[in-house]
Amino acid sequence: MKQKTFVLAPDSFKESLTAKEVCQAIESGLKKVFPDAKYIHVPMADGGEGTTQSLVDATNGTLHTCEVTGPLGNKVTAYYGILGDNTTAVIEMASASGIHLVPKEQRNPLITTTFGTGELILASLKHGIKKIILGIGGSATNDGGAGMAQALGVKFYDKNNQIIAKGGGALEHLARIDISEVNPQLDKVEFIVASDVTNPLCGEKGASRVFGPQKGATSEMIKQLDDNLQHYASIIKSQLNKDVATIPGAGAAGGLGAGLMAFTNSKMEKGIDIVIKYSNLENQLIGADFCFTGEGGIDFQTKFGKTPYGVAQTAKKHNIPVIALAGMIGENIEELYPEGINAIFGIIPSISKIEDLLADGFKNIERTSENIGRLINIAQI
Amino acid sequence: MKQKTFVLAPDSFKESLTAKEVCQAIESGLKKVFPDAKYIHVPMADGGEGTTQSLVDATNGTLHTCEVTGPLGNKVTAYYGILGDNTTAVIEMASASGIHLVPKEQRNPLITTTFGTGELILASLKHGIKKIILGIGGSATNDGGAGMAQALGVKFYDKNNQIIAKGGGALEHLARIDISEVNPQLDKVEFIVASDVTNPLCGEKGASRVFGPQKGATSEMIKQLDDNLQHYASIIKSQLNKDVATIPGAGAAGGLGAGLMAFTNSKMEKGIDIVIKYSNLENQLIGADFCFTGEGGIDFQTKFGKTPYGVAQTAKKHNIPVIALAGMIGENIEELYPEGINAIFGIIPSISKIEDLLADGFKNIERTSENIGRLINIAQI
Repeated sequence: MKQKTFVLAPDSFKESLTAKEVCQAIESGLKKVFPDAKYIHVPMADGGEGTTQSLVDATNGTLHTCEVTGPLGNKVTAYYGILGDNTTAVIEMASASGIHLVPKEQRNPLITTTFGTGELILASLKHGIKKIILGIGGSATNDGGAGMAQALGVKFYDKNNQIIAKGGGALEHLARIDISEVNPQLDKVEFIVASDVTNPLCGEKGASRVFGPQKGATSEMIKQLDDNLQHYASIIKSQLNKDVATIPGAGAAGGLGAGLMAFTNSKMEKGIDIVIKYSNLENQLIGADFCFTGEGGIDFQTKFGKTPYGVAQTAKKHNIPVIALAGMIGENIEELYPEGINAIFGIIPSISKIEDLLADGFKNIERTSENIGRLINIAQI
Repeated sequence: MKQKTFVLAPDSFKESLTAKEVCQAIESGLKKVFPDAKYIHVPMADGGEGTTQSLVDATNGTLHTCEVTGPLGNKVTAYYGILGDNTTAVIEMASASGIHLVPKEQRNPLITTTFGTGELILASLKHGIKKIILGIGGSATNDGGAGMAQALGVKFYDKNNQIIAKGGGALEHLARIDISEVNPQLDKVEFIVASDVTNPLCGEKGASRVFGPQKGATSEMIKQLDDNLQHYASIIKSQLNKDVATIPGAGAAGGLGAGLMAFTNSKMEKGIDIVIKYSNLENQLIGADFCFTGEGGIDFQTKFGKTPYGVAQTAKKHNIPVIALAGMIGENIEELYPEGINAIFGIIPSISKIEDLLADGFKNIERTSENIGRLINIAQI
C-alpha cells in the first residue's frame, strides 16, 4: 500500500485540548494503524477563542503575554501571537476585554472598556509587524471601540475639553475627537478583523440591543448605550468624515467593529476564512488521502462558519475526504454531509461526567481515531 | 461497485433494543449509504437474557408465554421460544426463576425454587420438540434444580415419607428420590444447557459460596446451603448412581446444573456457541463483505464469551471484517482487535441521561452505522 498522507486540521476541544493537542491525539491513534503514514498538523480555529494559539501553532509562531487593562479597569494578563512569518500578529480581543473576565454580578457595559485590546495592539506593534489578525468575539464591552482607540492615542473630549471616562456610558459626553497623537506605526498596519457578525452599530439590530443584554445591560441601559453609539457615530462622521453607523459589522463586539473602521486600516473577514488562509491549509491539503477535523461540538450550525465546515469546504475543492470528530454531536448533522464532511464520529465512550470527558479528551480522540484508521484499513483491503 | 452484503449479528442493547431491533437500526443507517446492498439479519445473544428472543427472531420461530411458579411461589408470567425448525425449544431459566423476580429485601435462597423452570420445560414439551436450549444465567435459587425436577415429576421424600418443601433449605431433609413418575417425554428430549460457569456444586468454589451472597444468603445460610447440596448430591449418587458433586458446571444457577445432570439428558455448552450454531451464523456469513455486531457494553471482558467475541471468531475464520457498536465502551478494548473485532465505535452522541440514551438507542445506532457506511464508502473510492 502506498504511503498515506493525513492532514489533521481540527479546532480546539474547548476546556479540554488545544487544536495542536487534538492533532497529536489523532496522529497517535492513526499511527497505531498506519505507522509509516505522513501526518501534517494544521491546528485550526474559526476566529473565536483559541485562534491565537492555533495560528501560532500552525505557523510555528510565538505566543506572548502582557499585562493590560481589563474590562473593569483592573489589570489582567492577556496574550497575543506573532505568526511564523514574523510580520503578522494575532490578537483575540476577549483575551483583554472578554466577558469571561467580568464576574456576572459586575457586568455593566456602561463602564466596561476595550482599552486593554488597544494595549495588546500596541504591544504587538513592537514586533514590527505589518498585519494584525484581530478576533473580536466574546466581548464584555459596548464602548464602540473607544477604549481601544484611547489606548492607541486617540483623545476623546467633552464640551469642556476634558477627557471623557471609559465605557459606553461616557460616550454621551463626547464632543471632540483628536487623532493627532495616534501611534504613527498604525498607518503602516493592516487590520484583518475576524468577525462573523454583520449587525450595524445602532438601532434594532445594533450592538446594544442585540448583544447588550448578555453583557449585563438592562433595558434602560440599552436605550442609553444605543443613543450613545448613535452620538459617537455622528461625531465620527462630522469630524473624521467616516460613516460607521450603518456599515454591516460595525456592531460587532459592542461596536468595536465601528471603532476599528474609524481609527484603523481594517477590513472584516469571516474568522474561518482568515485562519484557513494564514494556516496555509489549502496548500497542505494538496495530495492528502484524508483530512481529519473536529470540534468540541458539532451540529447543523457548524455549517454557519465553524472550523469543520471551513476545512471541509477547502478539502472538497480538492476532492479530499473529510472525517470529523466531535465531543458532542448535536441535531441534524446530516446537513453537513453535502458540505464536504464525509463522516462524523463522537468520541464519548460511556456515560460520564463532563469533568471526566474533558480530562480524557486525548484518550477518547486517540481511541476513536485508531478505530477510524482500522476501519479505513479493512475497507481498503 | 459490486453489490455489498452486510451480515448484522448484534446482541440486544439491554433495556433499549432487542437484537432484532439493533439489526433494523444498523440496516437503516447503512441503507442511506448503500441502498442496494444485501442485509442479512442474524439477531444474536450469548445464552443470557435475550437469548430466547434472539433465537426466535433469527430462525423465524415463535414466542410463547405461560404462567408458572415464581422463585417465591407466587405466579409469574414467563416465556419460552420454539425455533423455526419446530423441533427445538429455547428457555431462559431466569424468565421463571430469575433474581430480578425477587425484591431485594425478600431474597432468600433457603426458600427460592426452580419449580417454574420445570413448568416452562413442561410447557415447551407440548410442542413435540426434541431439543431444549436452556439458558441458566441470572437465577434467584440455590435448590440444586430440585424444584425443576419436582415440576418434571421427580418426588423428593424425607425420612417420614413426606414430600419435602421447596427451596435449598429443605434439601437437608431429603431421604429418598422417586423418579418413577417423571414425564416420559423427557426421555426423548436432549437438553443443551447454555452456561459459561464451570463451578462445581459444593465447596469453596461451589454454588452456595460463590453465588449465594448475590442471592441474599448470609454466611450461616451459605454453610447450610452448601451442606444441603452436598447431602443432595450424596443421595443422588447413592440412589441414581450419578456423581454430580464435582462435575464442572454442576454449580451453575444454584446447582440447577447438577439437577439437569441428574434428571435430564443434558450437556453444557458455552452460550455464545449454542447461539452461533442455532442461528446459523456461520453459513450466513459466507460471502459477506462486512459483519456488524454490537452490545450494550463492550470492554476487554467481551472476549470471555460475549456475543461480539463469538461473532468475531466466526467471521475471522472466513476473513470477514467485523465492526462492533457499543452503547458503552469500557477498558482495554484493544485486546479485542486481535480476536477479530476490527473496529469498535461508541454510539453516545453527547452527555446524556441513561434514560435518554436507552430511549434513543435506535437513532444513535442508526446514525453511527450511517457514518461507518459513509467512511467505508470514501475509503473504497
